[in-house]
Amino acid sequence: MPDVYSPLLNQLIEAFQCLPGVGSKSAQRMAFHLLDKDREAGGRLAATLERAVRSIRNCERCRMLTEEPICRFCGSDKRDATQLCVVETPADLLAIEQSGAYRGAYFVLMGHLSPIDGIGPAELGLPLLERRFSSERFAEIVLATSVTVEGDATAHLVAALAHKHGLKASRIAYGVPVGGELEYIDGGTLARALSGRREIEASSGEGGR
Amino acid sequence: MPDVYSPLLNQLIEAFQCLPGVGSKSAQRMAFHLLDKDREAGGRLAATLERAVRSIRNCERCRMLTEEPICRFCGSDKRDATQLCVVETPADLLAIEQSGAYRGAYFVLMGHLSPIDGIGPAELGLPLLERRFSSERFAEIVLATSVTVEGDATAHLVAALAHKHGLKASRIAYGVPVGGELEYIDGGTLARALSGRREIEASSGEGGR
Repeated sequence: MPDVYSPLLNQLIEAFQCLPGVGSKSAQRMAFHLLDKDREAGGRLAATLERAVRSIRNCERCRMLTEEPICRFCGSDKRDATQLCVVETPADLLAIEQSGAYRGAYFVLMGHLSPIDGIGPAELGLPLLERRFSSERFAEIVLATSVTVEGDATAHLVAALAHKHGLKASRIAYGVPVGGELEYIDGGTLARALSGRREIEASSGEGGR
Repeated sequence: MPDVYSPLLNQLIEAFQCLPGVGSKSAQRMAFHLLDKDREAGGRLAATLERAVRSIRNCERCRMLTEEPICRFCGSDKRDATQLCVVETPADLLAIEQSGAYRGAYFVLMGHLSPIDGIGPAELGLPLLERRFSSERFAEIVLATSVTVEGDATAHLVAALAHKHGLKASRIAYGVPVGGELEYIDGGTLARALSGRREIEASSGEGGR
């Protein structure tokens, strides 16, 4: 559409298409919306994005995205420093944090093993993770990677590293979600739930407490 | 999520939500994608957006979005200056231009009448349009607003203005799209197609050429 829109408008529509899930129609809609309806928000977005791209880096200890050298989890003295939870993305970290069930430290891989995309151990920060395994005193490494072929492979690799350093590694349980009706659960999840079954001890039934 | 992400990361996720159709999940995905995968594109988007918000304005003659005082349509001497096509949005202008069937001038309302949102004649630039009606020599005003209650009301209002200045106003035809099978056309469109039917003259059948 070089003949219809002005050069700068074309550039803006082009630039919006760097966002995930945004094609030319959505990009047009975004450009027109900001220019016509909300210039102030557009200016704010431009300034914030510029600052973020310039100053947000990976935390030196856990690779979480942050504008400070050390993220708020690694910098906090209220977290249990003997547990380290390994996640794939900052969004996964958020999900675990919001569950309220974990108070230890984190390590964010920023991805999962994917040789076809050139993502190997180095890209996931495993050398840094291994240095932490040897220099810190973790009681347990909690693996919370996703339940995909890549997530499983990543978990196995990190577990092997942990074992090499004499550390206990565990993987969070995958199975039927709370409130899930068996009828509607997919076969893969049910297979995981079955193979991960736990014995109900005779003295105190798990469901009875 | 003020406790999980760093302040700047939170601000960025917040800022992305000014885009139409972007909620907190998409905004997170956009922020992580740019920061983790494509900082260069992020920087380019920030710079382009900043420039666009600062310098793109409405064309002084037709209200099209452009960074120059006069848009390329109003500035061109290759367009038919006796026809003026009135559209609601720059995207509508693009659609008409891409059809290749129109070579006249444009006027972009940047919206349609919507009293409930405070959009009246002044917000649509009708005073400017009326000045052009009286100062220029148009042979025809082509109304290409959308087929909605608001689009129809807007077309009627602009047509009334044109008539006041002794100008001929027409509306583009609404009916069955080319290639449309009647069976699958909605009732509203069929009703429009029926009420807009044209006589086939005896000498040269319309379908026979």
